[in-house]
Amino acid sequence: MALDHLSRRLITLALEEDLGPGDVTAALLDPDATGRAIILAKSPLVVAGIEAFVEAYHQVDPTVEVAFEVRDGDRAAPGTSMGTVHGLARSLLTGERTALNLLQRLSGVATMARRAQDAVAGTKAKVVDTRKTTPGMRSLEKAAVRAGGAYNHRMGLYDGLLVKDNHVRAAGGVKPAIEAARKSAHHLLKVECEVTTLAEVEDALSARAEVILLDNMDTPTMKAAVELIAGRALVEASGNVTLERLPEIAATGVDLISMGALTHSAKAADISLEWDA
Amino acid sequence: MALDHLSRRLITLALEEDLGPGDVTAALLDPDATGRAIILAKSPLVVAGIEAFVEAYHQVDPTVEVAFEVRDGDRAAPGTSMGTVHGLARSLLTGERTALNLLQRLSGVATMARRAQDAVAGTKAKVVDTRKTTPGMRSLEKAAVRAGGAYNHRMGLYDGLLVKDNHVRAAGGVKPAIEAARKSAHHLLKVECEVTTLAEVEDALSARAEVILLDNMDTPTMKAAVELIAGRALVEASGNVTLERLPEIAATGVDLISMGALTHSAKAADISLEWDA
Amino acid sequence: MALDHLSRRLITLALEEDLGPGDVTAALLDPDATGRAIILAKSPLVVAGIEAFVEAYHQVDPTVEVAFEVRDGDRAAPGTSMGTVHGLARSLLTGERTALNLLQRLSGVATMARRAQDAVAGTKAKVVDTRKTTPGMRSLEKAAVRAGGAYNHRMGLYDGLLVKDNHVRAAGGVKPAIEAARKSAHHLLKVECEVTTLAEVEDALSARAEVILLDNMDTPTMKAAVELIAGRALVEASGNVTLERLPEIAATGVDLISMGALTHSAKAADISLEWDA
Amino acid sequence: MALDHLSRRLITLALEEDLGPGDVTAALLDPDATGRAIILAKSPLVVAGIEAFVEAYHQVDPTVEVAFEVRDGDRAAPGTSMGTVHGLARSLLTGERTALNLLQRLSGVATMARRAQDAVAGTKAKVVDTRKTTPGMRSLEKAAVRAGGAYNHRMGLYDGLLVKDNHVRAAGGVKPAIEAARKSAHHLLKVECEVTTLAEVEDALSARAEVILLDNMDTPTMKAAVELIAGRALVEASGNVTLERLPEIAATGVDLISMGALTHSAKAADISLEWDA
Amino acid sequence: MALDHLSRRLITLALEEDLGPGDVTAALLDPDATGRAIILAKSPLVVAGIEAFVEAYHQVDPTVEVAFEVRDGDRAAPGTSMGTVHGLARSLLTGERTALNLLQRLSGVATMARRAQDAVAGTKAKVVDTRKTTPGMRSLEKAAVRAGGAYNHRMGLYDGLLVKDNHVRAAGGVKPAIEAARKSAHHLLKVECEVTTLAEVEDALSARAEVILLDNMDTPTMKAAVELIAGRALVEASGNVTLERLPEIAATGVDLISMGALTHSAKAADISLEWDA
Amino acid sequence: MALDHLSRRLITLALEEDLGPGDVTAALLDPDATGRAIILAKSPLVVAGIEAFVEAYHQVDPTVEVAFEVRDGDRAAPGTSMGTVHGLARSLLTGERTALNLLQRLSGVATMARRAQDAVAGTKAKVVDTRKTTPGMRSLEKAAVRAGGAYNHRMGLYDGLLVKDNHVRAAGGVKPAIEAARKSAHHLLKVECEVTTLAEVEDALSARAEVILLDNMDTPTMKAAVELIAGRALVEASGNVTLERLPEIAATGVDLISMGALTHSAKAADISLEWDA
Repeated sequence: MALDHLSRRLITLALEEDLGPGDVTAALLDPDATGRAIILAKSPLVVAGIEAFVEAYHQVDPTVEVAFEVRDGDRAAPGTSMGTVHGLARSLLTGERTALNLLQRLSGVATMARRAQDAVAGTKAKVVDTRKTTPGMRSLEKAAVRAGGAYNHRMGLYDGLLVKDNHVRAAGGVKPAIEAARKSAHHLLKVECEVTTLAEVEDALSARAEVILLDNMDTPTMKAAVELIAGRALVEASGNVTLERLPEIAATGVDLISMGALTHSAKAADISLEWDA
Repeated sequence: MALDHLSRRLITLALEEDLGPGDVTAALLDPDATGRAIILAKSPLVVAGIEAFVEAYHQVDPTVEVAFEVRDGDRAAPGTSMGTVHGLARSLLTGERTALNLLQRLSGVATMARRAQDAVAGTKAKVVDTRKTTPGMRSLEKAAVRAGGAYNHRMGLYDGLLVKDNHVRAAGGVKPAIEAARKSAHHLLKVECEVTTLAEVEDALSARAEVILLDNMDTPTMKAAVELIAGRALVEASGNVTLERLPEIAATGVDLISMGALTHSAKAADISLEWDA
Repeated sequence: MALDHLSRRLITLALEEDLGPGDVTAALLDPDATGRAIILAKSPLVVAGIEAFVEAYHQVDPTVEVAFEVRDGDRAAPGTSMGTVHGLARSLLTGERTALNLLQRLSGVATMARRAQDAVAGTKAKVVDTRKTTPGMRSLEKAAVRAGGAYNHRMGLYDGLLVKDNHVRAAGGVKPAIEAARKSAHHLLKVECEVTTLAEVEDALSARAEVILLDNMDTPTMKAAVELIAGRALVEASGNVTLERLPEIAATGVDLISMGALTHSAKAADISLEWDA
Repeated sequence: MALDHLSRRLITLALEEDLGPGDVTAALLDPDATGRAIILAKSPLVVAGIEAFVEAYHQVDPTVEVAFEVRDGDRAAPGTSMGTVHGLARSLLTGERTALNLLQRLSGVATMARRAQDAVAGTKAKVVDTRKTTPGMRSLEKAAVRAGGAYNHRMGLYDGLLVKDNHVRAAGGVKPAIEAARKSAHHLLKVECEVTTLAEVEDALSARAEVILLDNMDTPTMKAAVELIAGRALVEASGNVTLERLPEIAATGVDLISMGALTHSAKAADISLEWDA
Repeated sequence: MALDHLSRRLITLALEEDLGPGDVTAALLDPDATGRAIILAKSPLVVAGIEAFVEAYHQVDPTVEVAFEVRDGDRAAPGTSMGTVHGLARSLLTGERTALNLLQRLSGVATMARRAQDAVAGTKAKVVDTRKTTPGMRSLEKAAVRAGGAYNHRMGLYDGLLVKDNHVRAAGGVKPAIEAARKSAHHLLKVECEVTTLAEVEDALSARAEVILLDNMDTPTMKAAVELIAGRALVEASGNVTLERLPEIAATGVDLISMGALTHSAKAADISLEWDA
Repeated sequence: MALDHLSRRLITLALEEDLGPGDVTAALLDPDATGRAIILAKSPLVVAGIEAFVEAYHQVDPTVEVAFEVRDGDRAAPGTSMGTVHGLARSLLTGERTALNLLQRLSGVATMARRAQDAVAGTKAKVVDTRKTTPGMRSLEKAAVRAGGAYNHRMGLYDGLLVKDNHVRAAGGVKPAIEAARKSAHHLLKVECEVTTLAEVEDALSARAEVILLDNMDTPTMKAAVELIAGRALVEASGNVTLERLPEIAATGVDLISMGALTHSAKAADISLEWDA
């Protein structure tokens, strides 16, 4: 799918902050010289961010040719050629850092997502992301999560109703909060309600929440909640989710496990451009 | 110092992607209700990003009051109150995620920078950042690096001359490349030259490079380079720098050690808003 | 709720197109002269667009004071004073047309929405809007629909899954289309499927569509569809809905009736500024 | 004539509000599938907005081919194919609503303009638009008015001097107001003055107003004014102009009749895309 | 009159290009230190650009206080204090250059305009500007021309009809060109026609051009043209107008003399900030 | 080198201010007619601004073909054809003024820069520009200075440390100010210090300033300063530099002479488009 307008603006911003009024070493290169470089994976990774990489180069110079041999979601071992860039040497060097910063960060997210979803293999649990994304990169990172085989939660505050403790307190209880939420939104948005106790689970069920978010529960309570809910709502587990804890959480039978670390603490993948001699 | 215009645009972008056409749960809150929350450190951290946090809230609603009790660069132990936000409950909830995403990420960078600079304590080495920053957050992250006690490299392609292998190849050698670089830029920019061998170090010295970057050298070669340079240029070490390797590199006598991981792979600090009952 | 960023941009655009490089008659007024005007309803209307009116004036001059005596959703009879504007005469005249154009158009939408929802009073049917809104005014017009007592459909292509005939054809049937839709989106979005025959209604039900849209059905078929669905999904009627036809459609027992004319063909309400002598 | 920059920005805004972070049903379509649709007139209409329709599609995807068989200003009967769109199915669906919203609204304005100008056929009167346009669509709607065969008034506050009652009061009379207006503007702008009585008409004449606007006069007074002016200035009639009243007003001999309803209350034309099987 | 939106954008651009990611010497100043400086005229000048100066400072820091003791259009002798700025020292230094660049350039234009209009004193001729303005500063420079006592020509291609030789050739003669022009524009725009011979003057008169522009005529021909026109149209002289030639041109009896040098070649006025000890 | 983003925005702004909602005389031309014009030098000039000229035309219409026969930095005598433009007549006329305004102004700067650098021929002095540039045209004008054979000073407040009297006062002396500056910036920026007396020169030397700016010194003092510095720092002369004074200043042995008039008071070069019959 084409990049959305916010992602394009983020890439523009990234180029502006790197180039400022211009690359002062560009003058060292013959303006007509062309070059070619291989996009080389240097750590084991799952690819994501191809469109962003291409967009960065095309914003610098629409004549740069980028040819990827992999697709978002593919695994690449260290030493793999992921593709090539070809064009004016000045353009290739000017766009290099920004294009790579995007590809490395997004592949880092996809790689982490892959590991997380693999950690719950054999269960029905889907690992989902959160809104703890890199500022300005929300939809790019969410695409990277999907590329890694994990799943998305809502995109933002506008495309899903998540009733939190503050809303519950403001409305005077789980049930009135859920009812108010349902009334305030259009008919294609489901209501999810955050709960911290089994009593609240019951309230949420009686108010017909379509999804119930178990916030920071210990594993036995989580398991009890899943049993109590018994399929009447989707169940999401949340709070301090690590790769290590994922299997245990998935084993409770929850449908969804949200994990902020997918986007806020993924290590960048190691990728570089290797220039042809 | 006030936020630069690119950082303000990044924060606008971050809010737009989270809010879209509006927070669908805002309707659950009384429009006139006010609230107060504590900004709580939940992991040991070095603070950075206070201005960005404030800017995010003020873009949502200029009447939100943010009062920090810490300053950028301060350490905060888990459980520390870093400050408070106070204002309309709707505004506080609407801006919460974006403001925290900024503060957590930037404090994560500062915390890593602090650990890196501490790892070279007792040497003259300065740990410096790179251009491997989060797209759109260049100057915010560079400020976070300084808050953590480490140092900045150039901001982008425009405020420092870094002659790389491609430039050397294009110019036909280290010396002509450095001379061309000096000619192409104004008189307040120094020339730094990337080298990979001792022979290139000599070339760079004879061309009077003001800074010499030792790229991916092993420790003994690095040490030999430092001795060869003997104070005639600043020396920067670069390539696969980890927290673990820092002391060994610093012991070679280099002046600067650049470390991409400061910004591309820092873990977000754990910070949350705790609401008053 | 505060105006979203797109609405603020639309208002900026509206002012730019009216003011261009400046109001050439502004020079006729003493720069320090102040004035006051009453915002006067001249046709029977339901109020909407107050925030947009205020924003337009505040973009022209933040010191203009706007005091409304009515709220969005209130009815106003011809001759009613809806509020006052007060400030520098130049600012009042410069912003007048743009502020009124917004208020008149949005009150026109609210007035039409009120008439439409009133037309189905006594049934469970909700009249909902469509994506046939004025370009650039999507969220302002959707707020006006709510002010008029009618309801919103999804905001855009991103916050609700509406499977249309093209999707059905592309997927090879209603059922595979609905399943693909459910898989492609996050768990807080419901799936609505457009159908034109009772056979398709059965397909949609068997695929567990959460909402079924009856497209351009005649009234008896609609009624049969409602009976067939029997509460297993929400039912929306769509296609050539007029104020006149609304009661008949509502009587079929559908839950939702979508009506493009709410936004694409509402007559502007008649409102003017009456200047104090 | 190419679209002006404000119209292009309005179209960008319209796409952003409809697409948000992306079309969630686009995933249902094969990314390489192409399609074709006919642009079908479903009500009798005068065409306008072709450039805006094309621009909307080209902002979505520059490879979409749009081929109109009609031109702005042509009449189209229900059932007429106005042209075709051809390209990637995803792009065609993503841009459909925005492109149609523009075409329908602008053709609606042209259709109304045609009816209005036809209503004064056989007189010298020109029906002109006003500044009561849809926010952000000023120049698109003014082009639609021309397409319909009617005429434009000034574009905004900057390209024509219209002295209104407030200016007259501020200047201390019609005459000093007109003289001040003439002095304040460059020599290619004419001065028009709003009057409500025959006495004011005389004042305006003696101050050599180039156009005199008769505001809310009854028909006999209007006729008297025209006679009094006797060709010494252009005469414009204004205030509560309806299609029904147009012939009577035109018969008074006025040169121009301004009609806000052309743009603020035109019904959208009914146009849809019909997909090839 | 408040600055128009394009001028505000130009000032933003000017600040962005000067500040980039931030003033690197700002760190030398105590963040809380305040300062005060006098705005000092250092060459004889006519003041213009006060609003732009204030806007530049307010975009840097809205708390900076700017108090001018002169107004646009006033003369200031070298050594005159034009006003003061007061506020945070960092803000004063950060905005200084941009604010002064605007004030110096615009006062330079006003000073030149004053000299030009003075050169035709005692005649009816008005010296007018052209579209040969500094890119991005059109309306600021046109205001400076007025401040200097000279006059404006049309603002751009949109608020006045100037029929040039290309239009004449395209239309097949002066007369059809003027008639086409009158038909293509709204009724508040006059038609001006460029001519180079007395024969063309006659054509323009017979087509009732409201203004006739004598392009690059020598003085006797110009005089003959004025006599031929005899008040039936305004007469503008154009082409290679210098301060020296102005009196001679004015003596021919033309109404308007347009002079590109007013804006494209004015010398900046000498103005500086003098800091209080 | 490609235009930076700020220059592209400036050109957009320049087109918007000239075109507004559209060229009202464009309707006089057949929409399909094409034309060709020669870009003609009419005064002796050094060419600069070719990229800006091309960009202006391409923003108007990407199909306009611009072919220059000269390059930035070339001299052109009056009567020289600098190149041609070819394309739709409407596009050529619409972009003409903006494209020429850029080319004339920038060639004016290059022409002045050429004269200034020629005035110091035979000495080692480089004439450099200042931050007294046309608002919004900083990097375009700095490129024009280079095209003319002169040199650039820093681009803005962010890419070079210039310690001024205010900083010295704030820091409590030249030496602490220089040391603070060095600490506050990254290692690729040199420190330049402004001095007004020989005593301050000594302070600057002892603090190892890399460049010393002699502000408003008379020639003998300047000469004494150069002797005192004796190659230990670069020396820049500044203050009231005119073409006439340049040789005398250069003879003192300074390395750099900064001259605001290069950009703030250059006369526009005379260039026009001559249309093919």
